[in-house]
Amino acid sequence: MALVERRADVVWEGDLRQGAGRLRVGSGAFPELSVTFSARAETPDGKTSPEELLAAAHAICYAMALTYVLTQAGQPPERVAVTAVCGWDPMALRVVRMALRPQAQAAGLTTDRFQELARQAEQLCPVSNALRGNVEIMLEFK
Amino acid sequence: MALVERRADVVWEGDLRQGAGRLRVGSGAFPELSVTFSARAETPDGKTSPEELLAAAHAICYAMALTYVLTQAGQPPERVAVTAVCGWDPMALRVVRMALRPQAQAAGLTTDRFQELARQAEQLCPVSNALRGNVEIMLEFK
Repeated sequence: MALVERRADVVWEGDLRQGAGRLRVGSGAFPELSVTFSARAETPDGKTSPEELLAAAHAICYAMALTYVLTQAGQPPERVAVTAVCGWDPMALRVVRMALRPQAQAAGLTTDRFQELARQAEQLCPVSNALRGNVEIMLEFK
Repeated sequence: MALVERRADVVWEGDLRQGAGRLRVGSGAFPELSVTFSARAETPDGKTSPEELLAAAHAICYAMALTYVLTQAGQPPERVAVTAVCGWDPMALRVVRMALRPQAQAAGLTTDRFQELARQAEQLCPVSNALRGNVEIMLEFK
């Protein structure tokens, strides 16, 4: 089967510290966005960054995986919520970790069973598997 | 040194196939976006997806790395352009590859030297290193 492809384009002008980039995504889901290194390494100041977009990719992907795993296990959720927090080290230039904080509303779902299924979903999640071994993935439960 | 953190939140309602999610990012760089599995696995229909966001993260990160490496090598670019294309297999639930297509405008930069420095930048790029070994990263030159 052919792969499904998704694309993005960046044009960067100037040097790393003083310059800036413009990001466009193939779907057009959001308008062109400006990106800078200081917004990435210091305060975001309303700008996105690679690490925020990794967190967004992971949160969506894991929410889908969790919904699927809960449903297959006979615990179809009404609602799933996932927060992803990506931590990176701008000195080492390394994406160090991703914390996933899942919650679910499903009739009769116990805490133990939820945590077991949440771990199964993490193993299934394509973005988890794209990062595995390079980025520490932490499941955090309240 | 403390890590720099960036976050995203997703709320998913309904099952995987018929349900939908809402994505918010911590920076507020774009408004809340709707995501669905069919937009991810079939046609985007104006919606973003984990793979598009991975491509966006990688394109920004690699454009920064390339700008830095060219500058350090005495070839400061006026402009760098990067397209990233992420290919995934919805049957295998696997992110298979990322193609990076870089271009640069820098006075006196030869094709061979550009390609050598583009490879160095790929080795430095934090998003490349987050995916390495799990996703095939391909540098494609015109």
